[in-house]
Amino acid sequence: MASSRTLVDDDRFRIVEWMIEPGDAIEMHTHPLDYAVLPLERAVMWAVLPDGEELEVRLTPGEAYTRAAGAAHRMENRGTARVVFTEVEAKAPTA
Amino acid sequence: MASSRTLVDDDRFRIVEWMIEPGDAIEMHTHPLDYAVLPLERAVMWAVLPDGEELEVRLTPGEAYTRAAGAAHRMENRGTARVVFTEVEAKAPTA
Repeated sequence: MASSRTLVDDDRFRIVEWMIEPGDAIEMHTHPLDYAVLPLERAVMWAVLPDGEELEVRLTPGEAYTRAAGAAHRMENRGTARVVFTEVEAKAPTA
Repeated sequence: MASSRTLVDDDRFRIVEWMIEPGDAIEMHTHPLDYAVLPLERAVMWAVLPDGEELEVRLTPGEAYTRAAGAAHRMENRGTARVVFTEVEAKAPTA
C-alpha cells in the first residue's frame, strides 16, 4: 500500500505528498480535479489504465507534469527506488 | 535579482521554480491567480506589502501554503541561506 500525507486542503488547493515503496501501488482511482505532479525523488512508476494499457512515468526532481481531471489509473512502483512526489489539485476557479 | 525557471505553463497550471540568493528579492508583484508555494530548501524570506507591512515567511521542505490571487508583495531574502521554492498557479476552473 502506498502512503500519503496531506500538506494543505483549503478552498483553493489540495496538496498531498505521496510515497510508494518498491512493489507497492496506489490503487485504481480517478482524479476529480486537474492536478500537477512534482517529483521529490528520481524514480520510475507505471500508470496502469482501466483498459490494461501501461504507461511508464519517469519522475525527476525539478520537473513537473499536469493532467486533466477524470482519468482513472493505478500507479505502480515496480522499481527499486521509492517513489515520492507532491500532488497539487486545483479546487476553485481562479482566473 | 531573483531567478526563475518555468517547469510547466499549460492550460491548467503555471509551475515556476524560484531562487532568491541572500540579499536578493523578487520585486513587488501581484499574482493574477491563486497559487501554492512548495519550499525546496529550508530558509526564511520576508514578504513586504505595498503599505510597508512586513511578514516573515518560514520555508520548510515537506510543507506548503497557498494564497489567493490579487495580493501584491515583494519577497526578500535577508538571510544567509538561499530561498528555493516551487510556485504552482491554478489557471482554469476544474471542479
